[in-house]
Amino acid sequence: MSFNTFGKFFRFTTWGESHGPAIGCIIDGCPPLIQLKEQDIQIELNKRKPGQSKFTTQRKESDKVQILSGVFEGKTTGTPISLIIYNEDMRSKDYNDIKDKFRPGHADFTYFKKYGIRDYRGGGRSSARETAARVAAGAVAKKVLEKKLGKKFKISAAVTQLGILGCDTTKWDDKIIYKNPFFCPDKSMLKIWEKYLLSIRKAGSSCGAIIEIRANGVPPGLGAPIYSKLDSDIASAMMSINAVKGVNIGSGMNSAQLSGEENSDEISQNDKKMKFSSNNAGGILGGISSGQEIIVSFAVKPTSSILKSRKTINKFGKNTTISVTGRHDPCVGIRAVPVGEAMLSCVLLDHYLMNKAQCS
Amino acid sequence: MSFNTFGKFFRFTTWGESHGPAIGCIIDGCPPLIQLKEQDIQIELNKRKPGQSKFTTQRKESDKVQILSGVFEGKTTGTPISLIIYNEDMRSKDYNDIKDKFRPGHADFTYFKKYGIRDYRGGGRSSARETAARVAAGAVAKKVLEKKLGKKFKISAAVTQLGILGCDTTKWDDKIIYKNPFFCPDKSMLKIWEKYLLSIRKAGSSCGAIIEIRANGVPPGLGAPIYSKLDSDIASAMMSINAVKGVNIGSGMNSAQLSGEENSDEISQNDKKMKFSSNNAGGILGGISSGQEIIVSFAVKPTSSILKSRKTINKFGKNTTISVTGRHDPCVGIRAVPVGEAMLSCVLLDHYLMNKAQCS
Amino acid sequence: MSFNTFGKFFRFTTWGESHGPAIGCIIDGCPPLIQLKEQDIQIELNKRKPGQSKFTTQRKESDKVQILSGVFEGKTTGTPISLIIYNEDMRSKDYNDIKDKFRPGHADFTYFKKYGIRDYRGGGRSSARETAARVAAGAVAKKVLEKKLGKKFKISAAVTQLGILGCDTTKWDDKIIYKNPFFCPDKSMLKIWEKYLLSIRKAGSSCGAIIEIRANGVPPGLGAPIYSKLDSDIASAMMSINAVKGVNIGSGMNSAQLSGEENSDEISQNDKKMKFSSNNAGGILGGISSGQEIIVSFAVKPTSSILKSRKTINKFGKNTTISVTGRHDPCVGIRAVPVGEAMLSCVLLDHYLMNKAQCS
Amino acid sequence: MSFNTFGKFFRFTTWGESHGPAIGCIIDGCPPLIQLKEQDIQIELNKRKPGQSKFTTQRKESDKVQILSGVFEGKTTGTPISLIIYNEDMRSKDYNDIKDKFRPGHADFTYFKKYGIRDYRGGGRSSARETAARVAAGAVAKKVLEKKLGKKFKISAAVTQLGILGCDTTKWDDKIIYKNPFFCPDKSMLKIWEKYLLSIRKAGSSCGAIIEIRANGVPPGLGAPIYSKLDSDIASAMMSINAVKGVNIGSGMNSAQLSGEENSDEISQNDKKMKFSSNNAGGILGGISSGQEIIVSFAVKPTSSILKSRKTINKFGKNTTISVTGRHDPCVGIRAVPVGEAMLSCVLLDHYLMNKAQCS
Repeated sequence: MSFNTFGKFFRFTTWGESHGPAIGCIIDGCPPLIQLKEQDIQIELNKRKPGQSKFTTQRKESDKVQILSGVFEGKTTGTPISLIIYNEDMRSKDYNDIKDKFRPGHADFTYFKKYGIRDYRGGGRSSARETAARVAAGAVAKKVLEKKLGKKFKISAAVTQLGILGCDTTKWDDKIIYKNPFFCPDKSMLKIWEKYLLSIRKAGSSCGAIIEIRANGVPPGLGAPIYSKLDSDIASAMMSINAVKGVNIGSGMNSAQLSGEENSDEISQNDKKMKFSSNNAGGILGGISSGQEIIVSFAVKPTSSILKSRKTINKFGKNTTISVTGRHDPCVGIRAVPVGEAMLSCVLLDHYLMNKAQCS
Repeated sequence: MSFNTFGKFFRFTTWGESHGPAIGCIIDGCPPLIQLKEQDIQIELNKRKPGQSKFTTQRKESDKVQILSGVFEGKTTGTPISLIIYNEDMRSKDYNDIKDKFRPGHADFTYFKKYGIRDYRGGGRSSARETAARVAAGAVAKKVLEKKLGKKFKISAAVTQLGILGCDTTKWDDKIIYKNPFFCPDKSMLKIWEKYLLSIRKAGSSCGAIIEIRANGVPPGLGAPIYSKLDSDIASAMMSINAVKGVNIGSGMNSAQLSGEENSDEISQNDKKMKFSSNNAGGILGGISSGQEIIVSFAVKPTSSILKSRKTINKFGKNTTISVTGRHDPCVGIRAVPVGEAMLSCVLLDHYLMNKAQCS
Repeated sequence: MSFNTFGKFFRFTTWGESHGPAIGCIIDGCPPLIQLKEQDIQIELNKRKPGQSKFTTQRKESDKVQILSGVFEGKTTGTPISLIIYNEDMRSKDYNDIKDKFRPGHADFTYFKKYGIRDYRGGGRSSARETAARVAAGAVAKKVLEKKLGKKFKISAAVTQLGILGCDTTKWDDKIIYKNPFFCPDKSMLKIWEKYLLSIRKAGSSCGAIIEIRANGVPPGLGAPIYSKLDSDIASAMMSINAVKGVNIGSGMNSAQLSGEENSDEISQNDKKMKFSSNNAGGILGGISSGQEIIVSFAVKPTSSILKSRKTINKFGKNTTISVTGRHDPCVGIRAVPVGEAMLSCVLLDHYLMNKAQCS
Repeated sequence: MSFNTFGKFFRFTTWGESHGPAIGCIIDGCPPLIQLKEQDIQIELNKRKPGQSKFTTQRKESDKVQILSGVFEGKTTGTPISLIIYNEDMRSKDYNDIKDKFRPGHADFTYFKKYGIRDYRGGGRSSARETAARVAAGAVAKKVLEKKLGKKFKISAAVTQLGILGCDTTKWDDKIIYKNPFFCPDKSMLKIWEKYLLSIRKAGSSCGAIIEIRANGVPPGLGAPIYSKLDSDIASAMMSINAVKGVNIGSGMNSAQLSGEENSDEISQNDKKMKFSSNNAGGILGGISSGQEIIVSFAVKPTSSILKSRKTINKFGKNTTISVTGRHDPCVGIRAVPVGEAMLSCVLLDHYLMNKAQCS
């Protein structure tokens, strides 16, 4: 039972609403003696921070994180790490129009049906603002993984499809991802994507995206049958991100179309070095990491808050329309990149720690 | 921490190996006073049972279930329900060849790396035989849902894509699904699929599949933000099924390509009856059921055990080849149909019960 | 796996160190639509607050609580409630002497052995200061119970034994408990206890205490076999309080000395009203509440921080002595009264909510 | 949420009713490569087995255990271990009289109130027969601990008080415990206890008991603040045993009467060997093991099923009386000895494994 908690051993619990005084998270199960300072977390938060380009919401949040507990003289102590980020640029009045109306594609209707009450300001708890707390938790997970797994561990994420436009993932370049406003790994697509997204924004519309995450240097043996398969925990993690509606591991949905001999990755050994001929499995066999690169991708649906007028009802059951004029990302998928990276970091660390208990 | 347990409130724990004496599960958290007899479970198990057509493994298992506890005078008592299925038609000798070899695409390598030991006979714990225990648990969940939600509740699953061949899901006919060997819902495809699968079997190859599950009569309000979103728990459930590599809710991966106005389902009301204009959300908004049909699909990779010779290594690190001659399904995806249906039933019941605690 | 989380459905996670910037907790699983304001929580916190009499530590903490999330327009929304209390009167320098020494009877030695690092200032995470966060969570639980169970629900706790001096529990008077510095329910003992505790304080020593908690108006049916027995969860709750070393339900340890006919409470019915002849069971039979008064007691060991010199070692393995001169309670048991009450409130609410999922 | 599951990482789930076909348990989280055969478990089950002396119930159960999964070629594989014990000597007719009556001191009334149905035969799920499954799980835990901690690890339990008669625990002799019908560790009391228990049985009455468990060779560092304190998990474990109403760690309830200087165990070091001057803490400080002997005791109330006539009501609300003539232990506390030992073994292993994840 863990509605607002993620993880089994390395666990974080998030709290906070979009227009409340603050948001934050508690991390429990972090190993002791890990060097950790606020700046380590801030670096990651800055990637997700809104207002950095014209292609994301213009809400201005410095997203300044404070460590309130669990760190002593620069090192983790093994006790819970409490992180807080104060909300700054809230314009709750922008949301008066949706106080009683249910925005199509949003959680408004279902929250109201379930709880009989909802903090409508900025989406309240269902706002993507919650993901800042995940990025903070992921930053801590990354620090631990880097210490435990050493330099061979590396995780990277990017937008590999923007609406109807894909990119060439063989041209993946880590260095450019956070240097372009689309978090695209393929330099050759930047101009094309820019033009495309500008046209969408201009039309008052929005588009979806596919995000891919790759983790290298993950040792074999992480994951656990049957209901804690690495695939299973990763899918759960990605689907918990706002607006995500599909998850693939390795060849994912496409594996349905492959033949047995195309799909199963052959194994060979050369000078004590094992090699797979391909990676349709996305680095996971039987729910357990094989030592190959972990490859995960997920689809983020297009932003539901659009300028175009949409039919809906209000909480009194009357038909009405809505056109959302607040500050919104034309493609929420872009800022999901650091979130996906953070979530995968947390899943990997969780299983790394559990594997110690299981098999050491 | 629940490696072999699924669910939060309605929980089942499975146990057993493919060639051990038996397999089974314990269901904890089942409400009392539900009518339950072995036959209720047997009906569902018979759908998954192997050896029913030439398109599934020829292993002959009667999959006869016994209820060992938790039912008194024909009704559940609220105490744990223990179910057992004895294994019958095991031919462990068939597996001597894989004792030391790692089959490509299988869990052999990763289990050995993790545990340093593995029961190789028939795949041991990683065998799809484990899914029989899930189908049994799902049968109990269905009985409870039918009592609690009444006749409007209905769940149905089918293969909607066999390898490279899709079918017309608008022609979905519940009545034919378990009456054809492909669990296909579209009568018009049966001949074509038969020819296709015969050719694959003849070639000593295998193919993947996409399974779709639809649940109607699910009330709004099931699911919970943030890390117990209905999408999240469903994705975790489906990805825990053997050989599943991708999961979609509603429009799923395809939602990345839609515009905001195409994707967000408009709402209207007529005579106190609410209606959505479409169902890209697959019946789930913000992680909570909206009352619309729940739509889930997942991809099963092609059977990794094929006749065609494949390169691999053995546990001593030597290069070798393998050609699997045991009894295998040319498309394991087919028998995943009742498994997916069972898993979704369990997730829905789990959230139905939790919602009582949360909001009643 | 929940090192810093308590509860199964109504869950709270605490964080913070004695001399860090703040302490707090996140409550998850609180039902929506409960009226809640900071003052509701403050009232309970004020009972536990230090510095209120000469018999408690002179550390001055206003223990001012802030609600950071989960409440909208005065009502809970069903989302996590984040509470924060800033630390104020910290004198970390008082603790320089224990930086390297392990105080006998304290967690110093074991924390260091386990984690290889410890925040020694004021006991860090192992300080009883953490219990303020529990009292805050308990205040919320009480508000929910009062709404759900109505006026018949009442919970009350008191010190029933101070060191070697008991009191007459048949004279239990709720109204005086928080009006005397010993949280004693028996007016006739106040003078005697005062004299006793003054002499202990003067001697630079300390004493233990027994706390009793009584809950009325608890409906039958709360609790669950086998490993979530109400007794089991209550024992776990009480033993998690700092310095607690023994827990009794009803006749408790004393039940070993009773005969079968003395111990088992007879049942009779009069005009549709059921009655038990006695309450050795403390209101719990087979782990499930019977509708009788719930009676729990627990022992708090004497404060380990005393003026008298004690032998110990330092972290370099050298023999030394220690005499603790900081600000300490001569009897930590006294301030455990509102903590025990809070913990029992949380356990009862947790089971009340779970029972809805199990049996409604 | 784990009604019938105990443990966090090393977890076991029990199932079965007193008069159902069988009882059993599933162990999840057991490390791989541990030598395990049925006889290892049988040895422990034989200690708890009924019908071994005139002082326990005359029900004849061979309590023969079968391993159904999780062990391959004599070693654990890391997958779930399923254990089953078939019930044999059931005389369900003996229980017809209690079909509609609630036995005072039993779970009859509360189960019926909660679930609206109960398997009354032999107490159904609330029967102490369930504890056989725990002893089986404990036997596995012990095997693991012995492998991981080596020969220095030793756990032992005994009855230290029978009704009103204590014994001299300084005369504790492991070798005699399971060789006398009272599981008494003090040879000098055997005759006296025999005479006492005979007189109780003759009078158609029953008596309670106190059981003490001691574990040596437990390394420092096991346990976790705050809500997984070793004390807390041990208290929960003991209180989950049928008829237990009080739990002490170290000085337990008695610690309330000690002064600070009497209670806190002084520390000293001699030739690199650390020593405590006493063990009031029962080997646990701040919830974490100190390396000292772990000392736990708990009280078992007298058997509620007695020959003497007792007032009660039936399920129709009518006043009646009951006199239980079935086969019962005059002191159920005796057979709780191997159960307590098993539960402590499980808690210690659980924390041993978790500590690897936390701090290795």
